[in-house]
Amino acid sequence: MASTKPPSGMRDYLPDAVTKRRYVMGKIETTYRRYGFLPLETPTMENLSTLLGKYGEEGDQLLYRVLHRGEKLSRALTQPGVGQSDLAELGLRYDLTVPLARVVAQYGNSLPRIFKRFQIQPVWRADRPAKGRFREFYQCDVDITGTTSPIAEVEVVSATCDVLTELGFRNFSIALNHRVILRSMIEAAGIDAALEGTALVAIDKLDKIGVDGVRDELTQRSIAEAAADQLLTMTAGADTLDNAGRIEQLREQLPMPEAQDALNDIATLLELTADTAAGTRLCLSPALARGLSYYTGPIFEVISDDFSGSLGGGGRYDNLVGMFSGKQVPAIGFSLGLERILMLMEEAAMFPDLQMGAKVMICTLADTPLTSVVGLANRLRQAGIMVEIYPEQARLGRQLQAADAMHIPYALIVGPDEVSQQQYPLKDLASGEQQTLDEAGLITALN
Amino acid sequence: MASTKPPSGMRDYLPDAVTKRRYVMGKIETTYRRYGFLPLETPTMENLSTLLGKYGEEGDQLLYRVLHRGEKLSRALTQPGVGQSDLAELGLRYDLTVPLARVVAQYGNSLPRIFKRFQIQPVWRADRPAKGRFREFYQCDVDITGTTSPIAEVEVVSATCDVLTELGFRNFSIALNHRVILRSMIEAAGIDAALEGTALVAIDKLDKIGVDGVRDELTQRSIAEAAADQLLTMTAGADTLDNAGRIEQLREQLPMPEAQDALNDIATLLELTADTAAGTRLCLSPALARGLSYYTGPIFEVISDDFSGSLGGGGRYDNLVGMFSGKQVPAIGFSLGLERILMLMEEAAMFPDLQMGAKVMICTLADTPLTSVVGLANRLRQAGIMVEIYPEQARLGRQLQAADAMHIPYALIVGPDEVSQQQYPLKDLASGEQQTLDEAGLITALN
Repeated sequence: MASTKPPSGMRDYLPDAVTKRRYVMGKIETTYRRYGFLPLETPTMENLSTLLGKYGEEGDQLLYRVLHRGEKLSRALTQPGVGQSDLAELGLRYDLTVPLARVVAQYGNSLPRIFKRFQIQPVWRADRPAKGRFREFYQCDVDITGTTSPIAEVEVVSATCDVLTELGFRNFSIALNHRVILRSMIEAAGIDAALEGTALVAIDKLDKIGVDGVRDELTQRSIAEAAADQLLTMTAGADTLDNAGRIEQLREQLPMPEAQDALNDIATLLELTADTAAGTRLCLSPALARGLSYYTGPIFEVISDDFSGSLGGGGRYDNLVGMFSGKQVPAIGFSLGLERILMLMEEAAMFPDLQMGAKVMICTLADTPLTSVVGLANRLRQAGIMVEIYPEQARLGRQLQAADAMHIPYALIVGPDEVSQQQYPLKDLASGEQQTLDEAGLITALN
Repeated sequence: MASTKPPSGMRDYLPDAVTKRRYVMGKIETTYRRYGFLPLETPTMENLSTLLGKYGEEGDQLLYRVLHRGEKLSRALTQPGVGQSDLAELGLRYDLTVPLARVVAQYGNSLPRIFKRFQIQPVWRADRPAKGRFREFYQCDVDITGTTSPIAEVEVVSATCDVLTELGFRNFSIALNHRVILRSMIEAAGIDAALEGTALVAIDKLDKIGVDGVRDELTQRSIAEAAADQLLTMTAGADTLDNAGRIEQLREQLPMPEAQDALNDIATLLELTADTAAGTRLCLSPALARGLSYYTGPIFEVISDDFSGSLGGGGRYDNLVGMFSGKQVPAIGFSLGLERILMLMEEAAMFPDLQMGAKVMICTLADTPLTSVVGLANRLRQAGIMVEIYPEQARLGRQLQAADAMHIPYALIVGPDEVSQQQYPLKDLASGEQQTLDEAGLITALN
């Protein structure tokens, strides 16, 4: 008999898991909607021409491709030296940013000029499965396209703070940096612009491997020791300063006009968030680099004090949409690490008691007139109550056991007398208490 | 520049479409939950060994297969005569019934013995796209596994009636038949059991091509004219009878014990639904055949009087889960045609006014202190109000136009005086009326 497990790195979500996932997604959605974000959904499959070249070489390798069928496949297979690119033209969604860029390019005129969207959908990556790393997992993105206003940054960041607070996260901060500040630090340290990418990879590890570790990495990456030290002074030397102090220090270290402009952006952002949930959480972190090369302005990362690693991140990327539309459309986005959030909430028992199934189970006796029971269930359901009927003849003990196993809090035991007198004993399964009620009483008690 | 359209037969759901789809899915989910159905979600990809051979030859051809990668692909391509089956081991979900059967086989012991689940997820079929036919579309299934009790049939059918009623459908009925009655009619007509399948395909068309059309088809399908006539008498001859009359007529026409048992099942089902929404809608229809060969008991189809074609259907299938688990697990299910329901609701303007975006847009003047505006928005949002901030400096007319385009009903115009006096003019964009309110007043007016 064939395996009945889901494919490697993918999961079946049984009712308990779906309920928890939906609780979190619901909180996220409600909060983002309060900020005026609108929902978007895109197809599971995209043309490979949309996906390839957007995620770097490693991304291209991790894409799932959909095999040609019929004629097209036969034709491809007769070609000499047939390879991967001859066998597929569709791939599975790899993130939610590229589909957004495609959508803005395609429907630009029928969308609001300043488009605020949230999107919670699965993506697929053929990565090696590991603890907390799946091949099918959900992403949760908010983005604002069409404006360079710093209000957009403020909205995205404070909405995200609200989401995390709503979910019960308390001790987190948002590391903040700016792509142009990073570039200016590289320049000020006398590092060749061609080495910017490799230098940033090393700097990004400051939290994990410390100053000495990063210095070693920088020199291994062909950066002179003096330059490495100078870069480390700027990125790691500000630990005791508050945001204003850091800005002042960077203003001195980075006199070039584009860096001064970027520091103005940062100062504006900090000022505008003063009266929001993000106000006390933003923390200027010159070592924050984030991997993605498409960022052009402010970048963010949520750091939890209770858990290592990030809960999400984002930044401004003003050039990506233009790759699809041919015209410049500025954009800022934030992606929450949904699977990570779910895992941490599970580990820290942060879920409230989520009512999953029915509120009451109707149990019957061997001679109960079932048509009346079905009718009663129907009327209770019309009143909005979640009702289960135990569908088989069984000992009462077995029926109550089933209710218990499904965490159904009440049982209604209905025999022929109850039907004829229209008085029903409602049993609280936790306390064992029982009260006899008519139909109106049941509706009041169970609602 | 590459195309920015979604792949053929697949759709981008823009905010308006998502909002309508979620409205319908939400109603479906709420209703099914009232019956105690629990949510299940399964991965987009399944092992091909799970999918192949379950949907007939045509189904196998319409499956999307996921191309091998890396080493595995290279190895496959060096084989002489490499074909489709060497290039893929994963496929995309084709329906929601086979994944359910796999899940019940895999997790049987940790699920309730009688498992009631609903599932609303997309499926993929490489069909030729046409009006109302997509390659990616949602299915919406409810099933009960683990019991042969007729209460299960009743729950599934009356829940589905409730769903359709909740959505605003009024004139629909549920055609009802039984697999064993169909088989017995074939036998009673003297048609060889080997021709049962082909005879049922013809009978199923009675609504579309009439008695004469079906008689022609039956004879073309190697069925003797006398047998065809006898079969047609049983299936088409009951038009003027009510359910009780039809049962009585079939009892006479089909004296074999298994047919009498099946008629008892039907009678029980009709009796049990008497006090539910399904009571007046069930209609015994001896010509109802439904395509799927896996049905073993009662079968159903929702027929709308206002729209041609079916809104959904289902039936009992007691052998499918056993194909995965090796042990018999009875099951009954119903699938709603979600895409069709959405299309009909759109055409008949059955959607209520769905509030999609923000309730109020805050518009600012050139010299408005923005930190205060962001703070005000933050406090209104904390009070549960959906608030949009126009993020750029622009003429007031342009800001109000944007609010209007997004169907935002109110605007709050905030200049420096409003900030200092904490009195805000709230403008109703439909009527043009304006009232000046403090923050508490805004929260009351907008909630």
